[in-house]
Amino acid sequence: MSQFQPTDRTQVKRLPKRGHYDRETVYKILDTAFVCHVGFNADGQPFVIPTNYGRSRDTLYLHGSAASRMLKTLSEGIPVCVTVTHVDGLVLARSAFHHSVNYRSVVILGIARLVEGPAEKMEALRIFTEHVVKGRWDDVRQPTEQELKATTVLALPLEEVSAKVRTGGPVDDEADYALPVWAGVLPLETVVKEPVPDVQRKADPPVPEYLKNYSR
Amino acid sequence: MSQFQPTDRTQVKRLPKRGHYDRETVYKILDTAFVCHVGFNADGQPFVIPTNYGRSRDTLYLHGSAASRMLKTLSEGIPVCVTVTHVDGLVLARSAFHHSVNYRSVVILGIARLVEGPAEKMEALRIFTEHVVKGRWDDVRQPTEQELKATTVLALPLEEVSAKVRTGGPVDDEADYALPVWAGVLPLETVVKEPVPDVQRKADPPVPEYLKNYSR
Repeated sequence: MSQFQPTDRTQVKRLPKRGHYDRETVYKILDTAFVCHVGFNADGQPFVIPTNYGRSRDTLYLHGSAASRMLKTLSEGIPVCVTVTHVDGLVLARSAFHHSVNYRSVVILGIARLVEGPAEKMEALRIFTEHVVKGRWDDVRQPTEQELKATTVLALPLEEVSAKVRTGGPVDDEADYALPVWAGVLPLETVVKEPVPDVQRKADPPVPEYLKNYSR
Repeated sequence: MSQFQPTDRTQVKRLPKRGHYDRETVYKILDTAFVCHVGFNADGQPFVIPTNYGRSRDTLYLHGSAASRMLKTLSEGIPVCVTVTHVDGLVLARSAFHHSVNYRSVVILGIARLVEGPAEKMEALRIFTEHVVKGRWDDVRQPTEQELKATTVLALPLEEVSAKVRTGGPVDDEADYALPVWAGVLPLETVVKEPVPDVQRKADPPVPEYLKNYSR
């Protein structure tokens, strides 16, 4: 797949070999997560708010209540930063200084567009739901006209984008390798536990296949 | 424990019952994670960067290379937002509209102070290392004077702070409870896998107890 063009703002400068700009790496990081951190300014104060997202090709969709301060602010067409991070492990070096973390992150800079047409809005919600749980959309009651109106959807183009990835073991100073200190990686992983059915259920349908096999 | 005073900027307005301002809740969310998302402005563009942190009482410590753009920018004493998020599960409702996520998050607003004295800086690095892996500091080679100089440490006071927590099952519209759609929670959990020793090791000490029992 093709590359995103790094800009002065997205090019990874300090540890350049951790920087990645190809769509394959960026898409994979975005598609295996579903919570992002959205950064924006309001009255000179930066805010960072966790929220869900969905991706379709080079568009990232955000959504939420039309009453949300974040979505109202972003609807005005101001600069935004969306960051998605996976934490893969603790990197334990022999010196405190060289401790690190294995991670994969994507940073997207841009201006989000308010999605207004009901058809595009509905399609964005489908993409959104399918991004979080593939197979879910066709199974649930879909949004009414009123629910659509109560939902704000924003589309952020993937244009100014970079990924940053650290993998592998610690990199110690040469003299430290002989120290009698355990060094290596403590891998971390997000796992899915058994589905917990709603106690308030009136019907009792079986757990759907797409949940039994759920992984990210 | 006492409460943080909510301000107009930290008070949770739209779903107020999800807002928490007591130190017990805030500390627990901060102490069971070790990666935060730091939001700041540079030339009118918000940036959100994942990084590690440590906490000691009402101070959050950030650190990194003295060459880091983020730390250089924050050292100038500009407004910052630090957000810590745990994702605990997917909340699957009978309608697309009522899908949600169980999460615990903390948002800290403020201005970070550059930690300059070598003694406070060293203590901050100890707190930092112990926050990520309790027991590690005494085990490793501690920072040299040169390493201390190459590290920037920032202290962000916990003053303007709020937590937001969602727990429990889906809340559906009354009419939807009878729908034959599986509803409930898909719990997510971060687990620690077996420690992987560094392939480049020259010594082969056993896995320390504090890693065998590691959990967050």
